[in-house]
Amino acid sequence: MTTATKIRAAATSPKPRKTPAETHLQALKERLQEISDIASAAAVLSWDQSTYMPAGGAVARGRQMARLSEIAHKKRIDAAIGRLLDKLEPHAATLPPDHDDACLLRVLRRDYERSIRVPAEFVARSSAAASASYNAWTVARPANDFASMRPHLEQALGLSREYAGFFPGAAHIMDPLIGPDEGVTVAETRALFGKLRAELVPLAAKITAAPIADDGCLRKNYPEAPQLAFAIKIAQDFGYDLNRGRLDKTAHPFMTGFARDDIRITTRVREDDLSDALFSTWHETGHALYELGVSHDLSPPLDGGTSAGVHESQSRLWENLVARSRDFWVHSYPQLQAAFPKQLKEISLDTFYRAINKVERTLIRTDADEVTYNLHVMIRFDLECELLEGKLSVEDLPEAWHARYQSDLGVRALDDRDGVLQDVHWFAGGLGGSFQGYTIGNILSAQFFEAALKAKPGIKKDIAKGEFQALHGWLKTNIYQHGRKFGVDALVARATGKPLSIEPYMSYLTTKYKALYAI
Amino acid sequence: MTTATKIRAAATSPKPRKTPAETHLQALKERLQEISDIASAAAVLSWDQSTYMPAGGAVARGRQMARLSEIAHKKRIDAAIGRLLDKLEPHAATLPPDHDDACLLRVLRRDYERSIRVPAEFVARSSAAASASYNAWTVARPANDFASMRPHLEQALGLSREYAGFFPGAAHIMDPLIGPDEGVTVAETRALFGKLRAELVPLAAKITAAPIADDGCLRKNYPEAPQLAFAIKIAQDFGYDLNRGRLDKTAHPFMTGFARDDIRITTRVREDDLSDALFSTWHETGHALYELGVSHDLSPPLDGGTSAGVHESQSRLWENLVARSRDFWVHSYPQLQAAFPKQLKEISLDTFYRAINKVERTLIRTDADEVTYNLHVMIRFDLECELLEGKLSVEDLPEAWHARYQSDLGVRALDDRDGVLQDVHWFAGGLGGSFQGYTIGNILSAQFFEAALKAKPGIKKDIAKGEFQALHGWLKTNIYQHGRKFGVDALVARATGKPLSIEPYMSYLTTKYKALYAI
Repeated sequence: MTTATKIRAAATSPKPRKTPAETHLQALKERLQEISDIASAAAVLSWDQSTYMPAGGAVARGRQMARLSEIAHKKRIDAAIGRLLDKLEPHAATLPPDHDDACLLRVLRRDYERSIRVPAEFVARSSAAASASYNAWTVARPANDFASMRPHLEQALGLSREYAGFFPGAAHIMDPLIGPDEGVTVAETRALFGKLRAELVPLAAKITAAPIADDGCLRKNYPEAPQLAFAIKIAQDFGYDLNRGRLDKTAHPFMTGFARDDIRITTRVREDDLSDALFSTWHETGHALYELGVSHDLSPPLDGGTSAGVHESQSRLWENLVARSRDFWVHSYPQLQAAFPKQLKEISLDTFYRAINKVERTLIRTDADEVTYNLHVMIRFDLECELLEGKLSVEDLPEAWHARYQSDLGVRALDDRDGVLQDVHWFAGGLGGSFQGYTIGNILSAQFFEAALKAKPGIKKDIAKGEFQALHGWLKTNIYQHGRKFGVDALVARATGKPLSIEPYMSYLTTKYKALYAI
Repeated sequence: MTTATKIRAAATSPKPRKTPAETHLQALKERLQEISDIASAAAVLSWDQSTYMPAGGAVARGRQMARLSEIAHKKRIDAAIGRLLDKLEPHAATLPPDHDDACLLRVLRRDYERSIRVPAEFVARSSAAASASYNAWTVARPANDFASMRPHLEQALGLSREYAGFFPGAAHIMDPLIGPDEGVTVAETRALFGKLRAELVPLAAKITAAPIADDGCLRKNYPEAPQLAFAIKIAQDFGYDLNRGRLDKTAHPFMTGFARDDIRITTRVREDDLSDALFSTWHETGHALYELGVSHDLSPPLDGGTSAGVHESQSRLWENLVARSRDFWVHSYPQLQAAFPKQLKEISLDTFYRAINKVERTLIRTDADEVTYNLHVMIRFDLECELLEGKLSVEDLPEAWHARYQSDLGVRALDDRDGVLQDVHWFAGGLGGSFQGYTIGNILSAQFFEAALKAKPGIKKDIAKGEFQALHGWLKTNIYQHGRKFGVDALVARATGKPLSIEPYMSYLTTKYKALYAI
C-alpha cells in the first residue's frame, strides 16, 4: 500500500476515536505493565540468587534488587496513578462488578492506597535487609549459628513493626503484615486455628498411637538424575509446560514467575530420601499451574494468584490430594518402579503408599505429614504474633521455639538448625503474616477438591489412569483463570458454593488416615 | 555506648567536614553506582535469556530488558550528572592525570556527552528490537531462514543509522557505532587491516599449500560432562575463581558480569568436536579474568574493561597464546588423556598439537584457526560498512556474504545458516562496529604476550608446568587492574612501551606456523 492509498483508506474508514475513559485506562495499564516488568526483573535476580549465583555476587545482588524494588515502588505510588484512578471512577461505576476492568480498578485502588503509605526509601531498605539476611541465613543455617542471625532478625522485626506503623488503627499489629489480600485478620485466623486444632489434635493422637508406618523404602539410595526426570515427567502430566517454565535446584524450593509464560519451579534433591524432590516439585507445580492458568486477558496487577492461602491450596492440592493419594500411585507407581527397579521392585504399592503418608511428630515443617503439618504452622503464627506484640524477644526465640515444639508436637530439636533457623521466611523479609496461609491453603485444598469431584465425579478414576485434564480444567475454570480478580471469600464462594470451612479438610484427613492406620 | 557518651565522643573528636568536591564526588558516585546496578540487572536478564529462559519468556523478556535499559539511560543522561561534572571540573584540574578520580571524571564526561545525544526512547526501542531479533535468530539460524530475519536486519540497520545520526560530523557513518572507547576510526581500521591483510594472505597461502593437519583425533565421541569438567579445571588453573563466577551452557558463548565478584562465562559443547567447548571456555575465561582483575578501588564506569579490542586481546591471549601453545599441552595433555583415555591414549602430543592448530579455509568465524580468523573479521567489517553506506542492501547481503567468502577464503557456504546467519551480532543489536575489535584483539594479544615474556622470561616454562600465576600477575598489574582508566593507546603504551603494532602478532604467527607446517 502506498502512502497515498493509506491516507485514502484512513479517510474512508476512520479509526474510532478513543473515549477519555479508554485513554485513561490505556495509560494506566501501560504504567502497571511497566511496574510489573520491573518487579519481574527483580524476581529474575532473586531466582538467580537462589539457584545459580556464585557467593561473590551476594552483596551487589542485594543492592541491585533493592534498587529495582525502590524504582518499582516509586512508580507504584506515583500520584499520576491516583489521578487516573480518580478519573476512572465514573467509568468503573458503569461496569458490571465482575468485569475485568472493574476488578482491576477495585484491586488497584486497594493496592495503591496501601502502597502510598509506605515510603520508597523503606522499600529499598527492607529489600536490602532481606537480601543481606537471606545470604547470611544460607551460611548460618548449616552452621547452626543463630547468634549471627540475631541482628538480622532484630532488624527484620524492627522493619515489620515500622511497616505495621504505616497502618495505624489496625486491630492487631500483624494485620497489616498479613494484608487485605488474604481475607483474614489475626483474630479470624486465631478463631479458625482454634477450631482446627480442636479436631486435629485428637486425630493426630489417635494416629500416632497406632503402629507407625515404615518408610524405609524411601530411604535407600536414589540417584539424583532419575529423581528429577520422574518428578518433571509427572509435573508435565499434571499440565506443567516446559515451554513456559523450567525446573532448577535450590536450597529451599519455591515457585516464581517473570512473565505470563515463564513460570519457574525449583526443587531440592536428597539422594537418601526419595520423597523430598518428588513432592516438593509437585508442590511447586501446583503453584505454577495456578499462575500459568490465569487468563491472558488479565493484565497487572490481576495477572497472578489471589492470596497466599489460595495459592497454597493449589500447591497442596496437587502435592497431597492428588500425589499422595492411592489412586495416583495406581498408575504412577509402576513407572516409579521402572525408574528405580533395584530400590522398589520388591516394594508393594501399599507399602509405598503407607510410606509416603507416614504420620509422625517431627521437627521440620516442610517434611511434615498432612496431619501434623498445621501444628507446625500454628507454632510459627503464634510466635510471630508474640514477637510483634513485644511479648517475646528475639533473644528468647530459639528457646520459645523448642518449648512450643515440646508442648505441641512432643519433640525437641537438638539445635537451632532444625529449630528456629529451619524456615527461610523470617530470614528473608517475611517476619509476620507469612505462615497462616499454609494452613488456610490446606483447608482450601480439600474444599476445592471436594467441589471439583462433585462437579466431575470421574476425576478420581482419571487420576488412577494418569489423566489430569478434567481436574486441571475444573481448577482453571473455577480458580486459575480469575487471577486476582476476586478476593478469597468471593472466589471460594464462586468455586465451591460455600464459605471457607474446615469440614471438607477434616473429612478428607479422617477418611484417609482411618483407612491407612485402621483407627 | 549510650546516647550521651556518643554525643560526647562526637563533641570531642569532630568528624572532619567533607569538602564540597568530596560531597559532589560522593553524590556522583552514588548515581553512577545506581546506573551500574540497573545495567547489571539488565545483564542478569540477558544472561538468563541466553542460558535458561524457556521459550515462553521471550516476549516479556525483551520488554523487561528494554524497560531497564530505558531507566538506566534516563539516569545516565540526567542533567544533574552534567551539573556535578561541571562543579567538579576545578577539582579534577587539581588531580594528577592518572588519579582514579581524574580518570573517572574524564571518562564519565566522554560517556555523558555521548549519552545525552541519544534519547531514552531510542534506547528502549533499540533494546526491544535487539531482543526480538535475538529471539527470532535463535529459531531462524537452525532453520536456515534468512527471510524471517530480513525485517529484523532492516530494522537494525535503520536503528544503527538513526544512532549514527545523533553524531553528525563523523568522518564515517560507522565511526559513532564503533565509539571512542575503541581508539580507532573506520579509516584507521581500514589502514590497519590493509597492512595486516598484506602479510596475512601470503602466510595463509603458504600454509594451506602445505599438507593439511589431521584433526581426526578431535572428532571422536567426547561425552559432555568430562569436557566441561576439564574445561573448568583449566580455567581455574588460569585463575578463574568459582566463588566469583560460574560456567553455563549457551548457543553462542559469551562472558558477562553482574558485579565485581560475579563474572560469568558460558560455553557450548559438541560431543563430536573436542575443541569447541575447551577453547570457547578458555576464550571466555580470558574475558572474565580481565573483569575479575579490575581494581576494587575503581567504581563505575571505570570498573570494567577498556575496549572491545583490549578485551578480546585477553580472551585470545588465554585461548591462543596460552592454550594453543605446545608448552601448555606439555603439562595439560596427559591430564586430557586421563579424562579421555579411550579417545586419546594412542594420540601423541604432537599429533594433538597439530590438530588444534589446523589451518584451513573454512566457513565459520568462531571455529577458524588463528591464521585465517582475521579474514573472516575483515569480511564482516567491510560488509557492515557497505550496509551503512547504503552500497549494499539487506536483501543482497546473503549473496554478498557468499561472494566475499568465495573471493577471500575460497569457500562458499551451502546455506545462510553457515553464511550470513552464523554470528549473533547483527541479530542482537550490533549492526556496525562490533567486529573490528576481534582483529585488534588478536593483534594486541601477541603484543601484550611479548611484553609479558620480556618482563618475566620464566612464563613459558611456567606454562609448561601448568603454572600461570606469573603471566596472570603481569596481566593484572599492567592491564586488568586499570579497568577503564586509560584509553587503548595509553594502555598499550604503558604495558608494552610501544604503540599498537602488527609486528609481534605476525612474528608470533610466522614462527609458530612455520614450525608446524615446515614452510
